[in-house]
Amino acid sequence: MTNLEEYGEVFSALRQTTPHWHAYTRHAFVRGLGDGSLPKESFYHYLKQDYVFLIHFSRAWALAVAKANSLDEIKACASTVNGLANGEMQYHVETCGKLGIPEDELFKTVEANENLAYTRFVLEAGYSGDFVSLLATLAPCVFGYGEIGLMLADDKTSDTYQDWIETYAGKDYQDVCINAGQLLDQAVINRFGKNYTQLPIWNKLISQFNIATRLEVDFWNMGLRGPCANPIAEPNGT
Amino acid sequence: MTNLEEYGEVFSALRQTTPHWHAYTRHAFVRGLGDGSLPKESFYHYLKQDYVFLIHFSRAWALAVAKANSLDEIKACASTVNGLANGEMQYHVETCGKLGIPEDELFKTVEANENLAYTRFVLEAGYSGDFVSLLATLAPCVFGYGEIGLMLADDKTSDTYQDWIETYAGKDYQDVCINAGQLLDQAVINRFGKNYTQLPIWNKLISQFNIATRLEVDFWNMGLRGPCANPIAEPNGT
Amino acid sequence: MTNLEEYGEVFSALRQTTPHWHAYTRHAFVRGLGDGSLPKESFYHYLKQDYVFLIHFSRAWALAVAKANSLDEIKACASTVNGLANGEMQYHVETCGKLGIPEDELFKTVEANENLAYTRFVLEAGYSGDFVSLLATLAPCVFGYGEIGLMLADDKTSDTYQDWIETYAGKDYQDVCINAGQLLDQAVINRFGKNYTQLPIWNKLISQFNIATRLEVDFWNMGLRGPCANPIAEPNGT
Amino acid sequence: MTNLEEYGEVFSALRQTTPHWHAYTRHAFVRGLGDGSLPKESFYHYLKQDYVFLIHFSRAWALAVAKANSLDEIKACASTVNGLANGEMQYHVETCGKLGIPEDELFKTVEANENLAYTRFVLEAGYSGDFVSLLATLAPCVFGYGEIGLMLADDKTSDTYQDWIETYAGKDYQDVCINAGQLLDQAVINRFGKNYTQLPIWNKLISQFNIATRLEVDFWNMGLRGPCANPIAEPNGT
Repeated sequence: MTNLEEYGEVFSALRQTTPHWHAYTRHAFVRGLGDGSLPKESFYHYLKQDYVFLIHFSRAWALAVAKANSLDEIKACASTVNGLANGEMQYHVETCGKLGIPEDELFKTVEANENLAYTRFVLEAGYSGDFVSLLATLAPCVFGYGEIGLMLADDKTSDTYQDWIETYAGKDYQDVCINAGQLLDQAVINRFGKNYTQLPIWNKLISQFNIATRLEVDFWNMGLRGPCANPIAEPNGT
Repeated sequence: MTNLEEYGEVFSALRQTTPHWHAYTRHAFVRGLGDGSLPKESFYHYLKQDYVFLIHFSRAWALAVAKANSLDEIKACASTVNGLANGEMQYHVETCGKLGIPEDELFKTVEANENLAYTRFVLEAGYSGDFVSLLATLAPCVFGYGEIGLMLADDKTSDTYQDWIETYAGKDYQDVCINAGQLLDQAVINRFGKNYTQLPIWNKLISQFNIATRLEVDFWNMGLRGPCANPIAEPNGT
Repeated sequence: MTNLEEYGEVFSALRQTTPHWHAYTRHAFVRGLGDGSLPKESFYHYLKQDYVFLIHFSRAWALAVAKANSLDEIKACASTVNGLANGEMQYHVETCGKLGIPEDELFKTVEANENLAYTRFVLEAGYSGDFVSLLATLAPCVFGYGEIGLMLADDKTSDTYQDWIETYAGKDYQDVCINAGQLLDQAVINRFGKNYTQLPIWNKLISQFNIATRLEVDFWNMGLRGPCANPIAEPNGT
Repeated sequence: MTNLEEYGEVFSALRQTTPHWHAYTRHAFVRGLGDGSLPKESFYHYLKQDYVFLIHFSRAWALAVAKANSLDEIKACASTVNGLANGEMQYHVETCGKLGIPEDELFKTVEANENLAYTRFVLEAGYSGDFVSLLATLAPCVFGYGEIGLMLADDKTSDTYQDWIETYAGKDYQDVCINAGQLLDQAVINRFGKNYTQLPIWNKLISQFNIATRLEVDFWNMGLRGPCANPIAEPNGT
């Protein structure tokens, strides 16, 4: 079984710095997935928001291609973009379909503020910063889901959310984490050398990783809260 | 006295479309400024967050210079950037100083999620879209504060937050709104022609304006809530 | 056989506006490919520059994913990015290998000024403008190579550069052009409506397409000139 | 008199690395300014191109505000943007006016390929990289003009281009260079620490500075060549 250390040394170092990591990976939403106590309504709400999330997550990985410094970085990120946009999105639509949520309902999802806060923070960090800043803000999502998957596979007490857990605990997703860990390690070392934690820029990366983790906590809060009882009809601007 | 119509036709058309405009401009925080019932603690919390906000707001106007299509657009936005970064920021620091909030406390402010949600949404809309998308997401802030200032100057029942109200009701800020309104009108017409509301892109601008307004509502919510009782010490990454 | 009209109506309209289209598509370099008179040295020089070009071209298509407004746009551009980075780049390396140019020589290619002028112009138009501006500056390359391929397949008098001609005249590349044409047409219509040529922004797109075409002419000039006899050793910054 | 060492240690270190620095600062165009042999036609052509250059140069400094990490960086760059857009542009228009080139002729200038190659390279390096990459590509222009100004003030043999020489040799411009040097030094040290030349990223900065210098050489080539005898009428896309 995958060990968290396989996610690489940069993630490991960043993970230790944020006071919010526990709140994120041991959130009530997560515990509710493990013991089956999460209300279906919350889960469905989360799935719909996650559909919108994946769109912007794909855009962020595409931005990483544009900001890459080497052909290896370009190839790695391009595979991820394509996998997300032409693979994972489709899988997500099918999963939701099986649960009775049709694609046009997914498509009409009004993006919650907590959802857009995270993706826009990531994208903006990428646009305003460099490739490494972009990866550092993507990291809490990529690796956090891997860690949560492994943890829940190990200690879940209910099969209610078995499919979700297997998705993230499974070899495919764990390989995504291992590859992303190597990409992040190489990217940092190829720019800042082996003693990167001694450089001032390391504090910036810690800060960006920390904020992104805080925003992930809010994402779970949003999921747990579920849909508004009386949502305001929003103008449709797509 | 300035009339809202002087803010230009594009803002006027966008304002009508969003279901959140009333929630934003008539928010309990705003009413508390008018009748003096807003707790000092909330106001100070808001001022500290606003300091961080102004930094990213300046960056957004700078991005508008980079994305401008004409020398007139460049000049208008460059003046705004410089006014914000080298004028308004200083004024804000002095105002806070008078209220007993020293600059180093402002500087240590941990940016609230609701605060960064708005500025990163604006910046990302600007980076991913064009000049007009950037202005459309800046618009709820620029014009909303103008409208709130005028409204409170007219119907306030307390002098507690008189200085704040005068700042936004005063001629200087109202002129900012009038100029920004002309800039927005010209930018839209110079790209999309006079019948811009008939084009599909108008729906995109409506959507972006609407989301930005929703995020402003959350900014007031954050202000009203005040600082956390037991904040988590965050890593400092500047 | 593919007809240029299948490249879509936006490209067709833009193509008519630029005074440089003929200079680009009927350049001496192109004629030399058709009649076999192009010196091998020029062709090899072009291939090496094209390797660097493809890297930045991939980045530009990735930027298009980040700037897309819809899932369809994201999917289309993500496929292109992946096809370029993980397919075409490899094909290019193999083609050069067969001609006796090893990959490490490709990798050490010093990017010519005329080469970077085009890709940086495209990328910057994309970053500063919107999705449509990005596509409009990519268009001369995408469709121009398609048109040149068809033309040379029809009237070539030599088989010396047969492989190159077949690559761009062949069904695979022609399908790329047809799909890109549909993407561009839909992108323009979904934003600016059917009467887009009546809008001021059309003039901006004409200007961007025209400059990009001019830069393509310079790219051929660079190819024809061949490598410098006594190149200055450049610092290696990858 | 200003000493080149006052331009800071980062510029000094970068300057030593590029094989093109001499070709740039001792270009025939520059020597022609010093001994008065530069044809008026070339100088006027250069001035018109420089007008377009300043527009994009202003945009690049504005992008630096958006990409800044600290309030000090924001303030410094915001002043520069405003000085360029609302000061230097006006001065340039007046200077040209005195020489008989009216503003509307400046405005109709068709941007030469060598001109746009440099500014788009800078802007793209800024968008794709970080604040430091942006400054490193702006540096050859900022500091090179300062060095050329000092050199020509010292050894010119003609007063024909006295005004131009005084502009760049004068205290105002030399102070711009000194301030930019401090900004660059601080930006690098605040991110990468004092031993930045030992880090892999230093090679990237060397490469970016070097390419930007090469593009400045081409800018002088373009100036020297003068306007085309029979220019093609370009579509006007502003």
